[in-house]
Amino acid sequence: MYTYALKGTIAYTPEREHFLIRENTYLVCENGKVAGTYDKLPPHLAGIEVHDFGNAFIIPGMCDIHVHASQSPFQGIGQNIENGKWNTWFDRYAFPDEAKFRDPAYAKAAYTDFVKKLQTTPTTRVCAYATSDIEATHILMDILNEYGFAGYVGNVSMDRNCNPELLRSTEETLHETRIWLEKCKNGVGAVYPIITPRYFPTCTEVSLAGLGKLAQEFQVPVQSHLSESRDEIAWVKSIDPTLAYYAQAYERHGLLNGIPCSIMAHCVFSSKAEQEALKRNHVLVAHCPQSNLNSSGMTAPVLQYLDEGIEVGLGTDVGGGNTLNLFKTIFEAVLSTKIDRANGMAEQKKRILSLPGAFYLATKGGGILWKSGSFEKDYCFDAVVIDDSRIKDRNQRTVYERLERIISLSDDRDIVRKYINGREVYRKGA
Amino acid sequence: MYTYALKGTIAYTPEREHFLIRENTYLVCENGKVAGTYDKLPPHLAGIEVHDFGNAFIIPGMCDIHVHASQSPFQGIGQNIENGKWNTWFDRYAFPDEAKFRDPAYAKAAYTDFVKKLQTTPTTRVCAYATSDIEATHILMDILNEYGFAGYVGNVSMDRNCNPELLRSTEETLHETRIWLEKCKNGVGAVYPIITPRYFPTCTEVSLAGLGKLAQEFQVPVQSHLSESRDEIAWVKSIDPTLAYYAQAYERHGLLNGIPCSIMAHCVFSSKAEQEALKRNHVLVAHCPQSNLNSSGMTAPVLQYLDEGIEVGLGTDVGGGNTLNLFKTIFEAVLSTKIDRANGMAEQKKRILSLPGAFYLATKGGGILWKSGSFEKDYCFDAVVIDDSRIKDRNQRTVYERLERIISLSDDRDIVRKYINGREVYRKGA
Repeated sequence: MYTYALKGTIAYTPEREHFLIRENTYLVCENGKVAGTYDKLPPHLAGIEVHDFGNAFIIPGMCDIHVHASQSPFQGIGQNIENGKWNTWFDRYAFPDEAKFRDPAYAKAAYTDFVKKLQTTPTTRVCAYATSDIEATHILMDILNEYGFAGYVGNVSMDRNCNPELLRSTEETLHETRIWLEKCKNGVGAVYPIITPRYFPTCTEVSLAGLGKLAQEFQVPVQSHLSESRDEIAWVKSIDPTLAYYAQAYERHGLLNGIPCSIMAHCVFSSKAEQEALKRNHVLVAHCPQSNLNSSGMTAPVLQYLDEGIEVGLGTDVGGGNTLNLFKTIFEAVLSTKIDRANGMAEQKKRILSLPGAFYLATKGGGILWKSGSFEKDYCFDAVVIDDSRIKDRNQRTVYERLERIISLSDDRDIVRKYINGREVYRKGA
Repeated sequence: MYTYALKGTIAYTPEREHFLIRENTYLVCENGKVAGTYDKLPPHLAGIEVHDFGNAFIIPGMCDIHVHASQSPFQGIGQNIENGKWNTWFDRYAFPDEAKFRDPAYAKAAYTDFVKKLQTTPTTRVCAYATSDIEATHILMDILNEYGFAGYVGNVSMDRNCNPELLRSTEETLHETRIWLEKCKNGVGAVYPIITPRYFPTCTEVSLAGLGKLAQEFQVPVQSHLSESRDEIAWVKSIDPTLAYYAQAYERHGLLNGIPCSIMAHCVFSSKAEQEALKRNHVLVAHCPQSNLNSSGMTAPVLQYLDEGIEVGLGTDVGGGNTLNLFKTIFEAVLSTKIDRANGMAEQKKRILSLPGAFYLATKGGGILWKSGSFEKDYCFDAVVIDDSRIKDRNQRTVYERLERIISLSDDRDIVRKYINGREVYRKGA
């Protein structure tokens, strides 16, 4: 590691409500951390290596805090099931596709496909779900590390209500999880394990209790799904009618306060009591607007969560979502609040999530897990360089307009360089 | 013109509710029309030229029946205005950008950019808005023709409530429109003129009356905007409180029954009386779900229109929409009915627009203007060849799943060939 600078149009959101955009600015990296941003390099940094990207944008690497790596092969498929039945999607797409990862050769090839697709997105850190196959989970961690990514990978625990290929006995899932944690608790590079009960309907009380104990023992975070759909909530209540709120199924076993925190995906229909549980346990909500809209036209009350001080980041939720590109998810995070406003759901507060507000969620919001997603001093040096010349028009546009257009229109072709923890991990055309 | 065949996986929607997908099938072109589809070429066609695209998809060319060519330069910009005010968007983006087309050199360059972008979408026919500058309108028609496109182009009439650069006097707009119609009533290639009052707030009664007479005299179609937002409807009512419904402002001047029909964009908030007017005048509704959602989170009641026998096609509505790719619009047409269902708006009929239903709207729906958008005999031979190998995964998927994935994930890179009226107009890499 050494000291160097990137130069270009830097854009980030130190606070939620506005972009800080500065042209011709130096972003200095020191030992994998952000050392500072400068209009002109100060004397003590004179002579450091500078990579000048002209007027290209340099933004913080984004954090995809809810993505099913094992569903990436069927990305874009299965989102238009006419009857909208919860189980049809699992039975026809998610479970059969996840079962294929039992074959290590397939897992290696398909996870490599996933990570290569991830390379040309703005994402630098993930909270990923693998499958219930522990060998495949190790493979995913290895490949993410090999390509320079940081984040968490979960082996998915299921000891009821899934297809036989993915089902484990309670003992098996707890035993395998312990062995796995012992093996990789110190990380595979910057890729760490995360306890991952898929969700309450697929995990018995005994397994949830055991996973909660493992989370405390190994001091690791926890991820799961919560209150995504009305069907799901009805199912949860039918399994345990004593629950005051769905999240209690996790909370009573110490699964809402993982270390540094627990990540709960969706939270579309969280009751007041559930929201209080999220807040008192410092849960990070993985808001997945693109997935919620695509899969069922639903929106989560994210403005309300933010008002109440609940932490929120963004997730693509591939394969419920159909893109690995968080720019699209940012766009749909704004969109989903427009839909709420149009439907009078935010009647009292006629406002939408702002574009910088959504950008913040994708970067610094999810980045609380790592102190990443911003260019403030001492943040992890995760940076993505985006060249907007392919999508530009022949008129002069402001930097804000260019950034808005990048969020709307850019794709894999426009990502030219990526750095994680100060290390260059992707170079277009290389 | 001659007889030839394309061979591949053909997919189209002769009826609204299901795809007809056939692999290894010949699609025969005779004098610019579809002659038939065959598993095996019959004896009388033996020896005709065959372009074999293997397992690539061949679909009917799509009809974008509402697109502002002059707003294409700011595509992806201006869709996140915090206060959501109707006028802010016009004053900051639409009007200043349209005014630039007064410069013929700019018009030529910017319209060429637009048409080149259109080349690599599934669109073969458009109903496009130019600006109020008649010279620029001629330029757009010429360029569309030069690149082989078919459709209609409108010179935009505005004699009140717009910026001075775009404003014309009533006499000017009627005179210019007459001269223009006389000049190109027989088409520039397959590109024809369409009467285009922007919308009621920008057109006086006198100009609307005059445009209605011109439409009848020249036997041309009409396009305009209708009931897009609540602000707009309130404005319309304040201008003429005697209107029983917004569309009456067009209907009373013979603007709802253009020839072959009138095209009204949006119709998000059409009252029962307005819907009856749409039906009795055989109006073609240009449904713009991506634009409606992006600009304000709104959805049009498209399932209701279809149930009532109102004709519907799809529009991208760039720059209100941010994509020229109707695949995205198809996806959002389905999505917008999911949103309605989630919000209980379609409570009595818990259903969504199916994927083939939305595909139908993008092809045969808008195609009623030209008898295009299907591979039935005697339809215009508009065909688009799509190679899905870039977006495929390593598993076997059904043809339906592959088509669903194309709609979700494909982009300009996957369009390999395009034919309009039997003529090859685009070849990837050529």
